Amino acid sequence: MARIAWLPYADREEAEGHLGPLPDGIDVDFFTEDDCRDGEIRWPDSLAEVEFMVLPYLSGTTGLSRIAEMPRLRVVQSLLAGYEHLQPLVPEGVTLCTGAGIHDTATAELALALALANLRAIDVHARNGADPSLRWRRTIGRSLADRRATILGYGRIGTAIERRLDGFEAASITRVARRERAADVATGQPYVYPFEQLPGLLAATDVLFVTCPLTEQTEHLLDARALALLPDGALVVNVARGRVIDTDALLTECATGRLRAALDVTEPEPLPADHPLWTTPGVTITPHVGGWSEAFQPRADALIAAQLRRWADGEPLRNALPTTGTAR
Amino acid sequence: MARIAWLPYADREEAEGHLGPLPDGIDVDFFTEDDCRDGEIRWPDSLAEVEFMVLPYLSGTTGLSRIAEMPRLRVVQSLLAGYEHLQPLVPEGVTLCTGAGIHDTATAELALALALANLRAIDVHARNGADPSLRWRRTIGRSLADRRATILGYGRIGTAIERRLDGFEAASITRVARRERAADVATGQPYVYPFEQLPGLLAATDVLFVTCPLTEQTEHLLDARALALLPDGALVVNVARGRVIDTDALLTECATGRLRAALDVTEPEPLPADHPLWTTPGVTITPHVGGWSEAFQPRADALIAAQLRRWADGEPLRNALPTTGTAR
Repeated sequence: MARIAWLPYADREEAEGHLGPLPDGIDVDFFTEDDCRDGEIRWPDSLAEVEFMVLPYLSGTTGLSRIAEMPRLRVVQSLLAGYEHLQPLVPEGVTLCTGAGIHDTATAELALALALANLRAIDVHARNGADPSLRWRRTIGRSLADRRATILGYGRIGTAIERRLDGFEAASITRVARRERAADVATGQPYVYPFEQLPGLLAATDVLFVTCPLTEQTEHLLDARALALLPDGALVVNVARGRVIDTDALLTECATGRLRAALDVTEPEPLPADHPLWTTPGVTITPHVGGWSEAFQPRADALIAAQLRRWADGEPLRNALPTTGTAR
Repeated sequence: MARIAWLPYADREEAEGHLGPLPDGIDVDFFTEDDCRDGEIRWPDSLAEVEFMVLPYLSGTTGLSRIAEMPRLRVVQSLLAGYEHLQPLVPEGVTLCTGAGIHDTATAELALALALANLRAIDVHARNGADPSLRWRRTIGRSLADRRATILGYGRIGTAIERRLDGFEAASITRVARRERAADVATGQPYVYPFEQLPGLLAATDVLFVTCPLTEQTEHLLDARALALLPDGALVVNVARGRVIDTDALLTECATGRLRAALDVTEPEPLPADHPLWTTPGVTITPHVGGWSEAFQPRADALIAAQLRRWADGEPLRNALPTTGTAR
């Protein structure tokens, strides 16, 4: 009997267009975001046979709602980096693999887009351009060049941000993560400061890129006291999670004009339409679209193709979480 | 008698704050943008003695209006890259030095800011954010990653753009300039296509950075025929001069939604408030602020300090134009 995988494409032709030829000895069924809407889920017929399942990208947990009827299931491949909502639903014996890595490109790109747009006032010019009386109103821009940049959270996205920052003549690039890492000339690993050093580092930061995961340790890591350490005019760019920052404290600092902010994530989300951040000068907001760009699909495809091949060949999967799910 | 230089700072303290200690054997006077406004020019007393004059940044030609009364003048240092308006006013025997190079950082930075803001819809989100009913409206972003970038005009600014593009995972970076340049592995010089190859290259360009100077050869280089060669959805970023592009042709292509544009320069400038480009979807406009950022002053200072030292030491000056001025 062929082993069955569910793929998030409409049909075989579309799947092979995205993934290339499918591995031998594998049968596939198709389960897409469209199939996976609450209330009207279209399940493939092979529920009892499927062994490898890709959860459609923005389908939440719906794809797991009949997991008890999937006795042969061994792998759930998510396309999200976060997994706290999925892990409790995946039973023992089933490996949950995350989409870690496939969003780095889009998210790091947005971090730079937000920083540059804020500093060079592209958002201000866009709003001015919508009002005939303000068109062609010139103001001197701020600058990413010569600024001291700090990357708070130095995982894959932090690294991807650094790679993009590299050509912009920043005065310095400082990396901060949960644990200190020694510099290693041989591997090119740069020195990474631990969170404990953050207060001193914030005082020497003009542009702060926030990319750390939300954990107990990072929730409100940037509170009023931490934000107060940033020098006047500093810019806070957040592409991580809104709750890493105390929103009220940030709002207070931006409302006085002392700090600036460029935020793809906020607390809460969606940011309510009457929230004062929307109208605070120096604040640039995008509606949590960090990972959501044309860069997503080819990287998702590449991960799916590689994981499918590994699974077909019996090789260890990438991005596999320890199986800590509830008993089946 | 000490040799006299005019510097664009308020006083010696400010000058030394910007330039460091001034060279020995040089006397300085101060001549700033503020001193240099039409109708109320405040000339230093040393008009008859000055030998080295820095033209204040945005002073147009006013600083040259009494050049006939400056018999000892040998050097006019401008802080602009363009010089066509200055050269006819500088008499024989006086060397005109441009500010070429000091705007590269700010202009290349803006080119990336414009491209990223347009692709990731920062401008759209900024306008949405100004309207409570459109706040937190999500759309999938375009991407600089995976796109084929072409830099049209590969001088200092084109090179500075390439350095910034480097980390963004573009599918390719293609360089085009007036003259073909062979690749040279030893010096790191990449291959540069000549303008003649442009038609074929445009057909393979998703993001076009326009940075070439305006010359007879480049005026309307991007006309209707050239723009028609770009693939659907391509983005044209112009930080050079508006007249390199046929504005009407670009407008037509953007109005149908086939092309996108991010423009710091337009034809004419200022772009009239009733010009349809202001309201064409997919078009991002900044009011010619490419070189005008905080990055300007330190780079202007560095050039002034270096030129002053060279002049004091009798060394050849940088950015010197051939003296082709009218007879004194």
